[in-house]
Amino acid sequence: MTSPLRLGIAGLGTVGGGVVRIAQRHADLLAARAGRQIQITAISARSRDKDRGLRLNAYAWEDDPVALAQRDDVDVFVELIGGDDGPAKAAVEAAIATGKDVVTANKALLAHHGQPLAEAAEAAGRALRFEAAVAGGIPIIKALTEGLAGNQATRVMGVMNGTCNYILTRMERASLPYGDVFAEASDLGYLEADPTLDVGGIDAGHKLALLASIAFGTQVDFDGIEIEGIERISIEDIEQAADMGYRVKLLGVARMTGRGLEQRMSPCLVPANSPLGQLENATNMVVVEGDAVGQIVMSGPGAGEGPTASAVMSDVMDLARGLRLPTFGQPASNLTKAPAAESAAAAPFYLRMALLDKPGALAKIATVLGEAGISIDRMRQYGHTDTTAPVLIVTHKTTRAALDGALAGMGATGVLDSDPVAIRIEEV
Amino acid sequence: MTSPLRLGIAGLGTVGGGVVRIAQRHADLLAARAGRQIQITAISARSRDKDRGLRLNAYAWEDDPVALAQRDDVDVFVELIGGDDGPAKAAVEAAIATGKDVVTANKALLAHHGQPLAEAAEAAGRALRFEAAVAGGIPIIKALTEGLAGNQATRVMGVMNGTCNYILTRMERASLPYGDVFAEASDLGYLEADPTLDVGGIDAGHKLALLASIAFGTQVDFDGIEIEGIERISIEDIEQAADMGYRVKLLGVARMTGRGLEQRMSPCLVPANSPLGQLENATNMVVVEGDAVGQIVMSGPGAGEGPTASAVMSDVMDLARGLRLPTFGQPASNLTKAPAAESAAAAPFYLRMALLDKPGALAKIATVLGEAGISIDRMRQYGHTDTTAPVLIVTHKTTRAALDGALAGMGATGVLDSDPVAIRIEEV
Repeated sequence: MTSPLRLGIAGLGTVGGGVVRIAQRHADLLAARAGRQIQITAISARSRDKDRGLRLNAYAWEDDPVALAQRDDVDVFVELIGGDDGPAKAAVEAAIATGKDVVTANKALLAHHGQPLAEAAEAAGRALRFEAAVAGGIPIIKALTEGLAGNQATRVMGVMNGTCNYILTRMERASLPYGDVFAEASDLGYLEADPTLDVGGIDAGHKLALLASIAFGTQVDFDGIEIEGIERISIEDIEQAADMGYRVKLLGVARMTGRGLEQRMSPCLVPANSPLGQLENATNMVVVEGDAVGQIVMSGPGAGEGPTASAVMSDVMDLARGLRLPTFGQPASNLTKAPAAESAAAAPFYLRMALLDKPGALAKIATVLGEAGISIDRMRQYGHTDTTAPVLIVTHKTTRAALDGALAGMGATGVLDSDPVAIRIEEV
Repeated sequence: MTSPLRLGIAGLGTVGGGVVRIAQRHADLLAARAGRQIQITAISARSRDKDRGLRLNAYAWEDDPVALAQRDDVDVFVELIGGDDGPAKAAVEAAIATGKDVVTANKALLAHHGQPLAEAAEAAGRALRFEAAVAGGIPIIKALTEGLAGNQATRVMGVMNGTCNYILTRMERASLPYGDVFAEASDLGYLEADPTLDVGGIDAGHKLALLASIAFGTQVDFDGIEIEGIERISIEDIEQAADMGYRVKLLGVARMTGRGLEQRMSPCLVPANSPLGQLENATNMVVVEGDAVGQIVMSGPGAGEGPTASAVMSDVMDLARGLRLPTFGQPASNLTKAPAAESAAAAPFYLRMALLDKPGALAKIATVLGEAGISIDRMRQYGHTDTTAPVLIVTHKTTRAALDGALAGMGATGVLDSDPVAIRIEEV
């Protein structure tokens, strides 16, 4: 049996604690599978004295994660501190500089600094792995990088923020407005300290940027993502969409187009009877489409101690078994800088508007759409409530540009009570 | 860049043709990802002259797959011949004996001879890989062996025969009896030459045996599987189960119990709104439950040229990248011989029977169940048709042994028109 693989773990929060527990509970199983012991040698966290319910006295302690990363008795530096800068970044850089492999769960760090960190790791001949950074326990990085390595990916999609999906599911089930469910989620501790990371689509955007890099061989481009959060999704949209056979999801979509890399993280409608439409609560789902394989769907818990620690251990086990791949599936120097393409691809859209009680109002709206070259697939007008009547329209495929033109035209007719809501319908 | 990885491909049917197409179409992409060329050097198939629509003239030809397996210019022998014995086995053995890595899509070969072949490969220091053997394009072997390597698996389930799932879906949708849909599937060429492999659950059983070996660290034990096919599933059961909120699936389940390894491949009822219940047509789905990760669900195309070739190329790419794991995730010598445990675990059951038009008939059935200690969760009696009345019962959890006792007791009451149908309800 080869010598033990020695881990230094920085960060003993939920995920770090979970990694320690797996390493202790499954020491024999891991050794049988890896052909060598997985041994924690040193740890680091903000507070040494906090009671975490963990047996830690066999491990060396470092107050400073950078010092931990540089220890001679550490082969793999496991970064579970979090944050796109500060100690996490400094420690990962120090680990690479001193010849350590790195395993991290830090999506923000890689979304912002993935390219230079991958280059540094490869220059040092070390691995930088991040299965736990995307979709929690779902082994999607491995599936995309290795399991589907014979494919040219054509599209990658995912619901990758459990909190947002929980909020949307709860709104629909309990028929509650966004604000109420947001407050509930906050009380339950489901939201990040800065909730915009969740509900603003930023956390999910970080994950999409990492998947797109592997799928399309491009440099991580978080800034190239068109991001829109779920803050403006109303219970009316959720209920009306359901009535038309759709569900609202915060959906990430990445596709390579003739004009560049299209990356979107935004509320979309998906058919209620599709796997994405049926996804409920905090579960994550990633859909990969490849030219050979067709469509693969993977779902599972996207967060939490056990699932995230499972993903971290998967990377650790790969390193123990001698698997060393470039961070994004091919050498960082190969990755292209694809221009960010606006999502000009045509799609059907869902429109909701409140029509004023004026003669010919609906005809005016229909005329504006027709003049913009947008044809109507389905339309429903409901009875007037006070002075307005809700109108739902599902268009045939159109471009966002044509739609924006039509939306401006509708505003100019004077028959609308407020700006219409427009949500893209993603074909899944 | 390292020297090219040289493939010898035996078998140029649907899957072999797909592998050649991917290797040709994506030569540059594969090289970028693997850091070396993937090069086909030699091929073998039954007929040299058949027009397969493939460019093959750059490759050396061998009539005999054993000779192909032994060629000096082959690093990886790709076995796509099929069959659990004969030329496939001889060629794989020859490849291992002459120091080649082997990639195969042959579930029957590994289900029957996996243990000695894995031992031989490991003794020779070579890899024997089989991603394509289970669930087509879904990278489930990789997920289980590597992606979830930090978990003790608690249960593995799967719908892994697309033809059976197609038949069951089509029966429900068109309200057609089994015989009619079987004949349709046969006409469409969906069935194996020996259809028992499909509808008898044997093909799916082969796959379950391979998954169980990895999940539980046990020697492949195909003979230990309780196998029941879909031949006796009636349209009545499908429709009545739907009425109670269930769907019928040919479901494989493997669990480690205190008494040994439980492996079942049989028709089960699953909740219609679960991912397994929603699976339609020929799509495959595998569910893995692990102690850390919870439940992971993967679905995708289970057969066909592109998906299966995608899985073969995944194994090839791993070898090109230098990943070499034991066949079943840990050394073959570690794998235990777990006794086959009968599925004594309690489960709810669905019962369908035809009650004769006699006074007190239903009371007699209920009494027999009660005396066997089986309580009734839900019961429906429908109106009499001629002389019998259909009765549906969903029991609370009970053991198969208790149920069999009750079924015998019901027969003895003389109030049944025929033997009751009993189908296990799997909690998913």
